[in-house]
Amino acid sequence: MSCSNTRIDRLRACTADLGADAFYVRDQSNLRWLTAFFGVFDDEDAHAMLVAPERAVLHTDSRYDEAFGRAAEGTEIEIDGTRQTHAAFARRVFAGGGSGVIENDASLAIETSIALSEYRALGKAFAEDRVRLIETSGVIVGLREVKDADEVARMKAAQAITDAAFAHIAAFAKPGMTEREVQIELEDFMLRHGAEGLAFSSIVATGANGASPHAIPGETRLEAGQCVVLDFGARAHGYCSDMTRMLFLGEPDERIRRAYETIRAANERVEASLRPGVTGAEMHQLAEDVLAQGGFGKKMGHGLGHGVGIDIHEEPVLAPRNNKPLVSGNVVTVEPGIYLAGDFGMRLEDFGVITHDGFEVFTQSTHEMVII
Amino acid sequence: MSCSNTRIDRLRACTADLGADAFYVRDQSNLRWLTAFFGVFDDEDAHAMLVAPERAVLHTDSRYDEAFGRAAEGTEIEIDGTRQTHAAFARRVFAGGGSGVIENDASLAIETSIALSEYRALGKAFAEDRVRLIETSGVIVGLREVKDADEVARMKAAQAITDAAFAHIAAFAKPGMTEREVQIELEDFMLRHGAEGLAFSSIVATGANGASPHAIPGETRLEAGQCVVLDFGARAHGYCSDMTRMLFLGEPDERIRRAYETIRAANERVEASLRPGVTGAEMHQLAEDVLAQGGFGKKMGHGLGHGVGIDIHEEPVLAPRNNKPLVSGNVVTVEPGIYLAGDFGMRLEDFGVITHDGFEVFTQSTHEMVII
Repeated sequence: MSCSNTRIDRLRACTADLGADAFYVRDQSNLRWLTAFFGVFDDEDAHAMLVAPERAVLHTDSRYDEAFGRAAEGTEIEIDGTRQTHAAFARRVFAGGGSGVIENDASLAIETSIALSEYRALGKAFAEDRVRLIETSGVIVGLREVKDADEVARMKAAQAITDAAFAHIAAFAKPGMTEREVQIELEDFMLRHGAEGLAFSSIVATGANGASPHAIPGETRLEAGQCVVLDFGARAHGYCSDMTRMLFLGEPDERIRRAYETIRAANERVEASLRPGVTGAEMHQLAEDVLAQGGFGKKMGHGLGHGVGIDIHEEPVLAPRNNKPLVSGNVVTVEPGIYLAGDFGMRLEDFGVITHDGFEVFTQSTHEMVII
Repeated sequence: MSCSNTRIDRLRACTADLGADAFYVRDQSNLRWLTAFFGVFDDEDAHAMLVAPERAVLHTDSRYDEAFGRAAEGTEIEIDGTRQTHAAFARRVFAGGGSGVIENDASLAIETSIALSEYRALGKAFAEDRVRLIETSGVIVGLREVKDADEVARMKAAQAITDAAFAHIAAFAKPGMTEREVQIELEDFMLRHGAEGLAFSSIVATGANGASPHAIPGETRLEAGQCVVLDFGARAHGYCSDMTRMLFLGEPDERIRRAYETIRAANERVEASLRPGVTGAEMHQLAEDVLAQGGFGKKMGHGLGHGVGIDIHEEPVLAPRNNKPLVSGNVVTVEPGIYLAGDFGMRLEDFGVITHDGFEVFTQSTHEMVII
């Protein structure tokens, strides 16, 4: 088993390292990654999986078991549609004596992201067994940090939709439109051009609204002379894309031009420096240094970047707290920003994958100023 | 305090009934309801609130504190943007000695929907205090069961958008289109006509796909002779709508016509019977009886209806497990269905509010067969 590369076997190796006999998985993104089933999960937090040394059993309900059964064909995953709680399922499969996979005096790894109510239900279900629950966090999320070729291809496909949407919106947006109108058009374009959903609710923030990195698009109208932050992404084949570009409404003044040149320089310096071995903290500091050299020190206020995959925010992050060297297969955003409260905000965001000797950017849209 | 009608005071009364000194709220829908702040929450699960006898303090971060501060003007809610964990915030406000609201030997009610990791963080934060955590579920959800006039107005506004979208899609949909094309048009229409978002990902399921109550719209094309299930809703002013209508592609055959007449009869019999005092279980049984009389017994497979509000699925439910009498102010769906595997599915869903002597339906779209 230690020689296998399947995702489930990699989790089994982690489970053994934890001293546990099996792993109980409830996080839905972790389940998507572990099963590699696509097009069968929806938004409901309705499934659980028990990964034991000899079995991997996914518990679901009658609404899903047919579709899951088809998706599981040719894999080792068993689909279990028994009408019972996940906790009762876990107890039956894990500690069910003769029919179960493990006898008593065993330990089961669980994720601390589960609800307290589910933790109590597990405690009750195992009350008569000598089973220890080992609380873990970040185990599967850690495995998900390194993407394989199939995952990279899915994210490139999601980004191609996102780039096309930017080209569309650059031609569509005009002074006088509201942020919300631009958002609706942007998202509709992605959905009509292959996105199965949005990676997140898009940001369209004009003028001073752009100074808030998490602005909610509203009834503010685009005005000549302003710049607009567009931060958006598609979901395709189960994976996210994420990009930010600016639109300039008419010829920008000198100060805005200088700010843009500064975030562009920060973005490009980092992208030229990303490779295995550098840390997220170093890359964040490099961006801060370039921003400070441009006269915009301490105006970013957020981390430089984050991992992307099945979720829009994954590990690793490019931020002061990450001192772990990056490795080939990490997929990260690079998004330096400048936010001047009451005035304007700017961000330039690409995403891509760390390769054996550098960084391959997925984002194809230009870094030149887009003046409309 | 017991005479007050504010939502926060109603929670305080529940807190006292539980024998607790304060309530720690983390569920984001509960926070939306308690604060009645709209347009400031986004999808992030980023906030927590401590409701004590004399104070109600909402803890958030720098991304939100300005917008929350404006929303809180004129209310008793204090906004706390201190950069610390929610657990540390709770400890500081609740058990912080002189500056806190409560001394030691107190108890704090928490929701069992919180993550296990947060429960552990609370345990750690309070490790040196003699504070007992009281685990509760359904307390605020229970308060949310009874809607006020403002909430009803918001849901009617959301439903008006949804009704308009149905009229639009009945004119738009044609044989040869894919389910996904129809879904995208339907959702885009709602967003361009006032919806701030979707209540849930819409179902468009044609032919045999309709036999699965939770079908994901795909590349299946609409064909003459089939019927299409459309189940969709808008979100407006923070509240959801929910409706299901059928489209018939050409003159339906006798069997399909009979099935539709049966779900319509079930829908209308229930809507005529809903009033304070009847139970969800009785209403579910009434629908099952009408379906069986029509020759379609035991073909529904789901509950007859559910509460709607800030969330798309709330209490009370119209289902066998609900033996509690309904009361004025409950907002529920009525959605009898018939599902014939491999053949077709049908559902007719309205939603509305229990009044002092009956049921006011929000849904304005016709119950007549819509044949296109």
